[in-house]
Amino acid sequence: MVEVSQMIDSDVFLAFSTYATIVVLKMLLLGPMTGYYRMTRKAFSNLEDTTIHGRNEEDKKKFLRTDPDVERVRRCHQNDLENIVPFVVIGLLYALSGPALSTALLHFRVFVGSRFLHTVAYLLPLPQPCRGASWIVGMLTTFSMGYQLLSTSLVL
Amino acid sequence: MVEVSQMIDSDVFLAFSTYATIVVLKMLLLGPMTGYYRMTRKAFSNLEDTTIHGRNEEDKKKFLRTDPDVERVRRCHQNDLENIVPFVVIGLLYALSGPALSTALLHFRVFVGSRFLHTVAYLLPLPQPCRGASWIVGMLTTFSMGYQLLSTSLVL
Amino acid sequence: MVEVSQMIDSDVFLAFSTYATIVVLKMLLLGPMTGYYRMTRKAFSNLEDTTIHGRNEEDKKKFLRTDPDVERVRRCHQNDLENIVPFVVIGLLYALSGPALSTALLHFRVFVGSRFLHTVAYLLPLPQPCRGASWIVGMLTTFSMGYQLLSTSLVL
Repeated sequence: MVEVSQMIDSDVFLAFSTYATIVVLKMLLLGPMTGYYRMTRKAFSNLEDTTIHGRNEEDKKKFLRTDPDVERVRRCHQNDLENIVPFVVIGLLYALSGPALSTALLHFRVFVGSRFLHTVAYLLPLPQPCRGASWIVGMLTTFSMGYQLLSTSLVL
Repeated sequence: MVEVSQMIDSDVFLAFSTYATIVVLKMLLLGPMTGYYRMTRKAFSNLEDTTIHGRNEEDKKKFLRTDPDVERVRRCHQNDLENIVPFVVIGLLYALSGPALSTALLHFRVFVGSRFLHTVAYLLPLPQPCRGASWIVGMLTTFSMGYQLLSTSLVL
Repeated sequence: MVEVSQMIDSDVFLAFSTYATIVVLKMLLLGPMTGYYRMTRKAFSNLEDTTIHGRNEEDKKKFLRTDPDVERVRRCHQNDLENIVPFVVIGLLYALSGPALSTALLHFRVFVGSRFLHTVAYLLPLPQPCRGASWIVGMLTTFSMGYQLLSTSLVL
């Protein structure tokens, strides 16, 4: 690893910071989107959430149901958690390990692009293999950074 | 970004470290709480977990069921993952970007407070909009930090 | 906290970097494993994923179902998210707080070992308390690091 004072102020770290923030905010936005679908489809998980729509207990319980659109956004959100969290962890350590700026930018851009495509492909939905391919491309990017990390700085 | 040697030892980083640790440990505790509800409500997902309660195979399968209290804790845990993970990632990058201590502390305190309120509102449960409001306040805090990050250090 | 220039290049940080990368890549691999089980068990969540297996709409809808093996991998993946994410966050802050190398290595090794054992115990499955014990050991490691963090650098 190169010296720290060169690192955190470096272009690689700033680039990681930008791309990580963008892709994490995108993931976070799926929360309100789930809320939006729950409201418009009137499909809730908690009895206390149905107060606006139902008047009596019997009426409220009707809205405790699952809806295909809500479940689709939730699966998209879960896939984001499963893939963006590993990218952020490994990407941060990778950015601190002193890679070339162009290589690092390539990894960050491909990953963030693939996850935006994945979200669009999941929510529209686009026919397969759009979603599958964007999922695999994102995962390979993370594995590539992880491989470079372990091959340069393995301490067991 | 200011110089690193001023940063990681800085009060902002120490404050982030403290608040992030507290809110992540709170999230982690929902795991044992789910376990506690599974034991007392006798509602399990895996056949091998029911050995203490059932004697024969037929008896055990009765306990492979969902329970409203268990599902409530699990939804609370999932909401924590969806919101605390973005806070930790964006908060860390924000803490390293050199914000004023008072502004940073305000963000960290509001977020952590809102998540504790969210957990209480989910588990008791408190009537809405307690849970909804605490969820939105926490999310706005993360968006505010993300906005400041992107407006000060955007590198694409 | 000790000085930064001694920290990020330190053995503790390099060790954290290695163990965190290994355990996060292990978690990420459960994604393709879920995909593998979905393909072989023909159990999908999205209609567009069933195109290879079904010819007409009626035929395809048969594959929109849950399968015990798929659900088992997914629960394992979810447990990883719930436990590895807190380890990574608290472990990173702990590695930066200047612990003794031997103590830090003990924490990282016990945690990573316990999570590999947890995955094996979940997927085979091994009889309880294998899975429960490895889950608890991993969680106690994270709590131990969190306790040391808060007792050395509490700033509220």
